[in-house]
Amino acid sequence: MKLKHHLFVCMNQRPPGHPRGSCGGAGAGSVYEAIAGEIEKRGLFEQIMVTGTFCMGPCDKGPTVVVYPDGVWYGGVKPKDVAEIFDTHLVSGEPVKRLRIM
Amino acid sequence: MKLKHHLFVCMNQRPPGHPRGSCGGAGAGSVYEAIAGEIEKRGLFEQIMVTGTFCMGPCDKGPTVVVYPDGVWYGGVKPKDVAEIFDTHLVSGEPVKRLRIM
Repeated sequence: MKLKHHLFVCMNQRPPGHPRGSCGGAGAGSVYEAIAGEIEKRGLFEQIMVTGTFCMGPCDKGPTVVVYPDGVWYGGVKPKDVAEIFDTHLVSGEPVKRLRIM
Repeated sequence: MKLKHHLFVCMNQRPPGHPRGSCGGAGAGSVYEAIAGEIEKRGLFEQIMVTGTFCMGPCDKGPTVVVYPDGVWYGGVKPKDVAEIFDTHLVSGEPVKRLRIM
């Protein structure tokens, strides 16, 4: 199996009110669920994989989602953005500019 | 910052004796430390990043380490393998065949 895309979602959780914030605290769990749901809905299990991670760094811009092999980093991702990431980026090959942090 | 390589180490931990095993139970913590140490020793903070993850699937072949953007999956990685992964793969561009699972 050679994946077309592997998405990594930071799931790091800090306590509410923590000055650094956290992806988990900003809703990463729902983003993970939305990505997993989209993979299922589109039948892309062989092509697209999603994995939760520990801290990847840009905590103040979370939830962070990194797409490989593209090396595209998204920040502030919400569940409602996930279909657009699939349509525009994963299917059509054009990263979603407004969400890109790197 | 554009990373040259991003390594993902599965840190999933199941109880000792669990029939599926786990990367954490097979020593993934030490592998993560060895990779982080090698990045520090070689001064590669701007080029190589390591991130711990939740389960990536091949639990019976753990510890699992995935290298992007290459899309190379390693299994059964031990701390003593880490310098070779750096020398052979990350520096010279040739994946380490004997550790490769995908």
